[in-house]
Amino acid sequence: LQLSLIQTVTLIPGDGIGPEISTAVMKIFEAAEAPIQWEERNVTAIQGPGGKWMIPPDAKESMDRNKIGLKGPLKTPIAAGHPSMNLLLRKTFDLYANVRPCVSIEGYKTPYSDVNLVTIRENTEGEYSGIEHVIVDGVVQSIKLITEQASQRIADYAFEYARNNQRASVTAVHKANIMRMSDGLFLRKCREAAEKHKDVKFTEMYLDTVCLNMVQDPTQFDVLVMPNLYGDILSDLCAGLIGGLGVTPSGNIGANGVAIFESVHGTAPDIAGKDMANPTALLLSAVMMLRHMGLHGHAKKIEAACFDTIRDEKVRTKDLGGNSKCSEFTEAICQRVRDMQ
Amino acid sequence: LQLSLIQTVTLIPGDGIGPEISTAVMKIFEAAEAPIQWEERNVTAIQGPGGKWMIPPDAKESMDRNKIGLKGPLKTPIAAGHPSMNLLLRKTFDLYANVRPCVSIEGYKTPYSDVNLVTIRENTEGEYSGIEHVIVDGVVQSIKLITEQASQRIADYAFEYARNNQRASVTAVHKANIMRMSDGLFLRKCREAAEKHKDVKFTEMYLDTVCLNMVQDPTQFDVLVMPNLYGDILSDLCAGLIGGLGVTPSGNIGANGVAIFESVHGTAPDIAGKDMANPTALLLSAVMMLRHMGLHGHAKKIEAACFDTIRDEKVRTKDLGGNSKCSEFTEAICQRVRDMQ
Ligand SMILES: CC(C)[C@H](C(=O)O)[C@@H](O)C(=O)O
Ligand SMILES: CC(C)[C@H](C(=O)O)[C@@H](O)C(=O)O
Repeated sequence: LQLSLIQTVTLIPGDGIGPEISTAVMKIFEAAEAPIQWEERNVTAIQGPGGKWMIPPDAKESMDRNKIGLKGPLKTPIAAGHPSMNLLLRKTFDLYANVRPCVSIEGYKTPYSDVNLVTIRENTEGEYSGIEHVIVDGVVQSIKLITEQASQRIADYAFEYARNNQRASVTAVHKANIMRMSDGLFLRKCREAAEKHKDVKFTEMYLDTVCLNMVQDPTQFDVLVMPNLYGDILSDLCAGLIGGLGVTPSGNIGANGVAIFESVHGTAPDIAGKDMANPTALLLSAVMMLRHMGLHGHAKKIEAACFDTIRDEKVRTKDLGGNSKCSEFTEAICQRVRDMQ
Repeated sequence: LQLSLIQTVTLIPGDGIGPEISTAVMKIFEAAEAPIQWEERNVTAIQGPGGKWMIPPDAKESMDRNKIGLKGPLKTPIAAGHPSMNLLLRKTFDLYANVRPCVSIEGYKTPYSDVNLVTIRENTEGEYSGIEHVIVDGVVQSIKLITEQASQRIADYAFEYARNNQRASVTAVHKANIMRMSDGLFLRKCREAAEKHKDVKFTEMYLDTVCLNMVQDPTQFDVLVMPNLYGDILSDLCAGLIGGLGVTPSGNIGANGVAIFESVHGTAPDIAGKDMANPTALLLSAVMMLRHMGLHGHAKKIEAACFDTIRDEKVRTKDLGGNSKCSEFTEAICQRVRDMQ
């Protein structure tokens, strides 16, 4: 009877340090008795009919069936015409919202404290349309595409996220003073969503002003929603405020519960296989995943064990200023998880 | 005979606190015996034939004759179809490079110290082309235009700036992984300029990576060159690192020596006319102007007097954490300038 509660998740360990940090997450989930069963898949892109790059069918089939995925870093393909795997995944599963909570980690010092914000990035269009032309020799245009549908979808998502996560305000980030029609449309949809969610405070701010204010006092921000490119920039900027991509979780959300959670740092080939990697970003992404699945108790326990281990300072990986191995850090977290049961 | 050395500069005091901070700069320049004569002009846009918005002819004539301008903040026009005055000025005088040195101010605490970098922003094209269309109902496109000519011009400018200002490296900031053709062209021109300036180190970095690294350790950057929108964002971000727009100078450079230097903060209507404004950003912009004109001795003296006054902490405007009036701060700088003669 208990078995029926176990949910299957597609695990894409990825390249470089990906397999090590995936193993770390699996161990910690096991210690926490999280009711998750992993289905490992490789997503090295293959070329389908007509040379079109695609996710291998068995990975696609697994994701289609399980709906939820956890993914480590993927190496950037170098073949000409090969798309970014991250972009291909977003596209294949229509993962329209990239969500990154940036929360200061107690005991891990950066120039900022008490950061607690979430960037929500439109993940499917805008400057990422991939439409470009040479107009005449020496003159190139790239097309930024903004649609009513995608803008409304992400705006609604942001307000629903705020409501479901007890967040007080949503800020729309834009340059509608320059891109009056495209960012104007995006902004209009945010305003409409705000009308539907009067319990959440709504503000709008120019992207440049957000950047300026962000580095001066990030604590003034709560949920931020924005078009694709601005989200690419701001989400990395905000990750920097709390310690970088090694400690920042990320989730890509699609319709009908489909979602892929991922660490957004690189594959770190220089330390791959050396038991030196820091699994925090992938682990916290997996915690986001648990929450997405409604497994709040397990999420809370694992998150606390991770933060406690970092705060304690005794067992930290090198990038966090410590001397411990990935496996030692993992074991310390497992121990804390077990102590909590 | 000495009179022949005096150069005339077009002064656009601007709106809100503009007149007060312009007066402050004029007083300090007088105390420093800077060989500058001011020609005041108003640039409230007027509508020419066919309803086209333009700079008033006498302001244009003055700039055309003097080639150099100093400008306070301008209020954003609210009339429909009215362009941003800043954009109109850049366009009218083809000010293709926006240059913002961001240098930590000793004694004025921010989360960062030893910041010493310069952002160089392409100021004429890119996402600011203003070309937008509705494709079908609910689908809008904005066109980002990148040209070989403008990319080459800004890339060359960046390397020449680095060489002339004893700067060791230039970083090209781009998203050529996404906008392969447009940012690709920009990047190619930077690489070509780098080939011509082997004495200056060249690196390239994705915009998101720059933002991430910038907030973690800005001291790793030197000169950064980038397309229009990225410059809009990064220049404000970097200003935030050293204390905000109230202390950050800016210059807009065109061909043949034409240039307008400006403070990029707002008009602050709430404190306008109350002798509370901080003239630092406009003063440091005027110092950039002096250097541009080859008046290095005067530039150095005024800059030192300004920084010494801030470091001393006794006489600071409110936004800098003090209790002094604009006129008192100005007088303190004048006194230091006089003491140096
Ligand atoms: C790898 C790259 C295509 C990607 C992007 O630009 O979106 C990355 O920066 C990200 O944020 O996931
Ligand atoms: C006022 C606005 C048009 C302008 C811009 O977006 O370029 C401003 O942000 C700037 O940086 O000068």
